[in-house]
Amino acid sequence: MAPRVGIIGGGQLAKMLGQAASQLGLQTVVLSEHSHCPAVTAVGEVIEGGADDLQSLRQLAEASDIVTLENEFVDADLLGRLEKEGHVVAPGSATMRVVQDKLLQKTALQAAGLSVPKFVDVPNFAALEEATRTLGLPLVLKKRRNGYDGKGNATIRASADLRMAWQLLDGDENALFAEAFCPFTQELAVMITGSAKQDAFVYPVVETVQDRHVCRVVKARAPITDELGATVAMLASKAIDAVKGIGTFGVELFRTVDDKIFINELAPRVHNSGHYTIEACDCSQFENHLRAILDWPLGSARMRAPAAVMINLLAEGKGSGAPVGIEKALACPGAHIHIYGKTTSAPLRKMGHLTMLGESLAETVQRAQDAANKIRFGHAEPKK
Amino acid sequence: MAPRVGIIGGGQLAKMLGQAASQLGLQTVVLSEHSHCPAVTAVGEVIEGGADDLQSLRQLAEASDIVTLENEFVDADLLGRLEKEGHVVAPGSATMRVVQDKLLQKTALQAAGLSVPKFVDVPNFAALEEATRTLGLPLVLKKRRNGYDGKGNATIRASADLRMAWQLLDGDENALFAEAFCPFTQELAVMITGSAKQDAFVYPVVETVQDRHVCRVVKARAPITDELGATVAMLASKAIDAVKGIGTFGVELFRTVDDKIFINELAPRVHNSGHYTIEACDCSQFENHLRAILDWPLGSARMRAPAAVMINLLAEGKGSGAPVGIEKALACPGAHIHIYGKTTSAPLRKMGHLTMLGESLAETVQRAQDAANKIRFGHAEPKK
Repeated sequence: MAPRVGIIGGGQLAKMLGQAASQLGLQTVVLSEHSHCPAVTAVGEVIEGGADDLQSLRQLAEASDIVTLENEFVDADLLGRLEKEGHVVAPGSATMRVVQDKLLQKTALQAAGLSVPKFVDVPNFAALEEATRTLGLPLVLKKRRNGYDGKGNATIRASADLRMAWQLLDGDENALFAEAFCPFTQELAVMITGSAKQDAFVYPVVETVQDRHVCRVVKARAPITDELGATVAMLASKAIDAVKGIGTFGVELFRTVDDKIFINELAPRVHNSGHYTIEACDCSQFENHLRAILDWPLGSARMRAPAAVMINLLAEGKGSGAPVGIEKALACPGAHIHIYGKTTSAPLRKMGHLTMLGESLAETVQRAQDAANKIRFGHAEPKK
Repeated sequence: MAPRVGIIGGGQLAKMLGQAASQLGLQTVVLSEHSHCPAVTAVGEVIEGGADDLQSLRQLAEASDIVTLENEFVDADLLGRLEKEGHVVAPGSATMRVVQDKLLQKTALQAAGLSVPKFVDVPNFAALEEATRTLGLPLVLKKRRNGYDGKGNATIRASADLRMAWQLLDGDENALFAEAFCPFTQELAVMITGSAKQDAFVYPVVETVQDRHVCRVVKARAPITDELGATVAMLASKAIDAVKGIGTFGVELFRTVDDKIFINELAPRVHNSGHYTIEACDCSQFENHLRAILDWPLGSARMRAPAAVMINLLAEGKGSGAPVGIEKALACPGAHIHIYGKTTSAPLRKMGHLTMLGESLAETVQRAQDAANKIRFGHAEPKK
């Protein structure tokens, strides 16, 4: 029998993991709250249930030889329960416990000697006031858990904003920490696949371009020197070692004006900044994740084109999950279009992505943007 | 709503169509006799039923916006019934009627002025005896319908073999025809995608290497002159026009020692000799098939690497459908491994394939073969 891979979550990352698994002849089953999740067209089975429900997780684990995940929000204690019951989870609960709590994650990275922006725990409002003195302003107040795409973060520029930020993140209910604002000039990211049997494989370093805290464009390779690229790759290797990561991880980094590199955060899973690897690399981040968790040899992370650009297709507003204008985008030569198959759109929701390969970043960004501009999801809110 | 594509058949071709469809955000449903068919991990739904059963075909058509197929054996009359009931079938019943009957197919190609080996209808045994005089020996006796991988063909080298060949193909029950044996020195193939709206897109010409009538190796591009390649591409375009083909078609050809090209046969579907296009071309044969039947713009058929080699992974004997040695094959850099997920193996059954990209055919064939040799399915029959 081919190994059966269980995936917690049924979104686009589970879908793309399912596509890679299907190619390798693996059986897949996902746990999702919705039977019509994006993954449904790329996996063998969907179990309906919540990732925070032990019974559902058990059902997934019993249908699988190995359990993995598409987001970092699955409670490490629940994963630990599965492990105690004899199921294999990768990445494991010990890794997830550290990575899913950004305060523990930063502490682990710092303890491994890696550069992260200065941070302090903020267990109460008084600690936040104290943080403005130790870290200075601006600072970023963050939820320790469950933040993504800027959700769960608040930038504080003046002492007058402290109370509002505390309320915005509901500091009385949620565990928070504070981080010195990093005056970055460029955001970088790198995918890395960790394995129990061999050294981690590092993908090319990419530049990510955010708009309203959501990733819009990924440029591979990042326009940086080879020396800086090597520094980033080394940081990524040490970071995944620091959390004993197995599988594909995303590492997000800041570059400052004086070419210092700080790790922003780790994602213990396949990641948006690695979607370009499907078409651009010998072995995609998704296939390598599966190879890693199955203890199979990792595949080459080499790029097969001089340049690759990935653009997220974000919804403009509420509407259906089907794209408008896909025919026009498909008419753009070389556009690799991925539509996730979500049932509905909402403002800034990631509905798909588009990858373009090319000879240089400059021309490839242009062609990718031209193609992506032809696709629309949902209706833009009328301007007031 | 995204278009829903129904596929008649649930084998590896349906699976790879499903993978391409899923990426484009399409909904897919296949009709298969087995709920655990290879396509199950790559489509949204499997309807259990036979391709020769009108009720099952109707159920598929009603669940779909457009119906397509993965093999040429679906009876054109049944497809015509679906069309009359208002369903869209692509390729349509008129095309399928001609292509699925090799005698009608050759007649259509010949009428379009295309070179095919000489052939005659063989409605009875007397006609077969007559054929030895008009075509000479050797000749190939063939079933008009339902032949594949050499099944349904018998080569007759001497008059003494006539009766045995007639019995082998059960000429009293099956409609047969006879074809002059083509003394080919090389077998070529080319994938072509026909569209209602734009000119057909032709993929690079490949060389196919058969062993015991089953394709083993596909070399892209074929080691032939550009001039000969252009001739083959033109023949393919005229052939698909001759049958008004919509979607991706495979064209198999013979090259003789004096560089004459004869069309061997058309397959009105995605084809084994085009699997290399998944990794090697801008747009795969599978995605282009979907684009064509949905009346979307076709994608570029350009190769993204100087050389690509596809090797079929055939079973040695009966056994499970899971590969042995896949870890060793995955350790070969650049090996793209596709395992179809069949439940059981049988001698010479196609269980998967492997594609390798490279800089030259010679080195790529070697690396592909080295990787493919590491994978085994089933147990070889003990030698007697």
